[in-house]
Amino acid sequence: MQIYADNAATTRMPGAVIDVMKECMENIYGNPSSLHSPGQRAAEVLAQARESVALMIGAEPKEIFFTSGGSESDNQAIRSAALAGKRKGKTHLISTAFEHHAVLHTLRKLEGEGFEVTLLPVYENGIVRAEDVRNALREDTALVSVMTANNEIGTIQPVKEIGAACREAGVVFHTDAVQAAGHIGLDVKEMNIDMLSLSAHKFGGPKGTGALYVRKGVPLLPLIEGGAQERGRRAGTENIPGIAGMAKAFSLSMERLEENRAYVSGLRDALIEKLSEIPHARVNGDRERRLPGNVNFCFEGVEGESLLLLLDADGIAASSGSACTSGSLDPSHVLLALGLPHEVAHGSLRLTLSAENTMEEVEYMAAKIKHAVRYLREISPVWEELEKGERKHVI
Amino acid sequence: MQIYADNAATTRMPGAVIDVMKECMENIYGNPSSLHSPGQRAAEVLAQARESVALMIGAEPKEIFFTSGGSESDNQAIRSAALAGKRKGKTHLISTAFEHHAVLHTLRKLEGEGFEVTLLPVYENGIVRAEDVRNALREDTALVSVMTANNEIGTIQPVKEIGAACREAGVVFHTDAVQAAGHIGLDVKEMNIDMLSLSAHKFGGPKGTGALYVRKGVPLLPLIEGGAQERGRRAGTENIPGIAGMAKAFSLSMERLEENRAYVSGLRDALIEKLSEIPHARVNGDRERRLPGNVNFCFEGVEGESLLLLLDADGIAASSGSACTSGSLDPSHVLLALGLPHEVAHGSLRLTLSAENTMEEVEYMAAKIKHAVRYLREISPVWEELEKGERKHVI
Repeated sequence: MQIYADNAATTRMPGAVIDVMKECMENIYGNPSSLHSPGQRAAEVLAQARESVALMIGAEPKEIFFTSGGSESDNQAIRSAALAGKRKGKTHLISTAFEHHAVLHTLRKLEGEGFEVTLLPVYENGIVRAEDVRNALREDTALVSVMTANNEIGTIQPVKEIGAACREAGVVFHTDAVQAAGHIGLDVKEMNIDMLSLSAHKFGGPKGTGALYVRKGVPLLPLIEGGAQERGRRAGTENIPGIAGMAKAFSLSMERLEENRAYVSGLRDALIEKLSEIPHARVNGDRERRLPGNVNFCFEGVEGESLLLLLDADGIAASSGSACTSGSLDPSHVLLALGLPHEVAHGSLRLTLSAENTMEEVEYMAAKIKHAVRYLREISPVWEELEKGERKHVI
Repeated sequence: MQIYADNAATTRMPGAVIDVMKECMENIYGNPSSLHSPGQRAAEVLAQARESVALMIGAEPKEIFFTSGGSESDNQAIRSAALAGKRKGKTHLISTAFEHHAVLHTLRKLEGEGFEVTLLPVYENGIVRAEDVRNALREDTALVSVMTANNEIGTIQPVKEIGAACREAGVVFHTDAVQAAGHIGLDVKEMNIDMLSLSAHKFGGPKGTGALYVRKGVPLLPLIEGGAQERGRRAGTENIPGIAGMAKAFSLSMERLEENRAYVSGLRDALIEKLSEIPHARVNGDRERRLPGNVNFCFEGVEGESLLLLLDADGIAASSGSACTSGSLDPSHVLLALGLPHEVAHGSLRLTLSAENTMEEVEYMAAKIKHAVRYLREISPVWEELEKGERKHVI
């Protein structure tokens, strides 16, 4: 059995999305900035895609800027809001301890450029509190950036309430919705969002394409300078097949949103229930307020990487933490932010399900994981110490 | 007849390139940062593409960083070299007046951040002189950036000599090779290049994919912060289908380089010869040292945009200046840099040919252009003044 359970890392593209991209690659070959007919046909495809993406989040087409992906969108949003704030003497930035590195590393760089950053706690359940945001807001706050849903533990944040607090204070509010889009509903107006980052390949679209929503009236400075594309906010010839594929994938996801949500969260709950039978295991992140497909566990005495390799040999593609940090030996910054000790934060397993998964696969995965955890504990010196009582259980 | 003669704006993708991308989209769906098998298969495709692209320019695979395109590559190269220079107290940057806007606008932004920029002249033939670079080099020069071939007039610069001057002075040398790659041979070692920008869609590859070559030992700072992709120099999940398509397109172009060069430059020379028969017309840029497919003309008394629209009605896709600035009413900064007066710089026509064009098409285009120029002059008040001697010819 081959099971793909790493949909938070990236998703498989539906055939209909590949078809749209192939059609563009073959027939829409012009540069949308060109005045001639092949160029104008490309410009039409671009306009339609912009309209479609805008519609999915309740925005206007003019508020959508296409980028090369979620990381670029995050970098541009944060850097732009920070620099625009600085011009008005505002150099304080608020975010949280468990954001994606595209956010955290950009903030760290801005710290080196004279900005002050407040990182809010996310508590044991992995949920930011709107009242904490409200309390952290200052006269000189230029930006609040809180992700819509976390990429490792899938917890969904009270974005609407955080947005309301920011709107009241007149502070720009950015949310990294890379993991949420296509999986839960998003409405930028209702949720009081000023800037929102999207990545196509997290909802069945192509890699290398993303978008940034920027509310009308909020300034946006370019990260990539050059040509006048994207109304002067993002230089570089637009990736027409990628953008058309993104629009198609997003609308397909939204058409099936409720149906997929019910089905996938059923699989998730069954898998969580089965894995909870393992002794000294813990679900990371709030049990209710989480993405439909996210399962994240720590198993005491088990190394995340060894577990992954055993599962891979059984045909199961899963993850330990996020793909972006998989090369790193550091424990997950997300799990540390929940207050987990280092040795536990090292041993997490993330399974992120999609509508392509089945209950049969869930049963297979649960059995294989139970077996692998048992085996790894048998050969683990840490587990031996725990068993002998020479070391105290933390889970 | 439908003729695509705007290959400097963007190229059509060969079927073999589309096939490679489709295969990746269907079967190589993992995230190359993931440890599991689908991820590792993606990582292999990425490694092969990196090796292939490196080989095409005489570089090592480790010296290739994939980006979202030429503009991003230019931005990152210049900003990185400038900031790395600043750390050593070097804040002087050298470039030329007719670079792509991705270079010029980045330099302008750096000027606002305390850097000093020297823009070298390009003379009437559109060729930078290595001795000018040598004379402009200072103790505090951090970077020289000179394009390999110009995007509007196709003139090929003495990159090897400029690189030698920089190497001697210990100054980082960047070249925007976006228009040159796949059309003329490039060897970063032989040409003394430290950093080189590439864009896939200018040689039959996909839009939204590019690369930056950075010589081993030359520091590279990220433009997009976040995950550890591209050895920490460029965050964001790698666009595997795009990168594989870029590698395929580049190697196809290089396999056919000499054959295409001879064929396409034959078409170019025939077209230039025919268009030179038009009175008060001038070829822009050096007649010999230019890209195989580039034809760039000014016709006195003729507006570039009107000419394009007439040609488009005849099925000919051509350009006035570059696609990146087509929305703008300003005259071409490239033609102004050649010393052309404003009214002439407004009226240019760029035809950029590929191996897909034929001599029959060249004849058709020449006939249609002659006809259109005649017609536009008939209805032009400027031409009437020229004819009556009330205004002096400048061509």
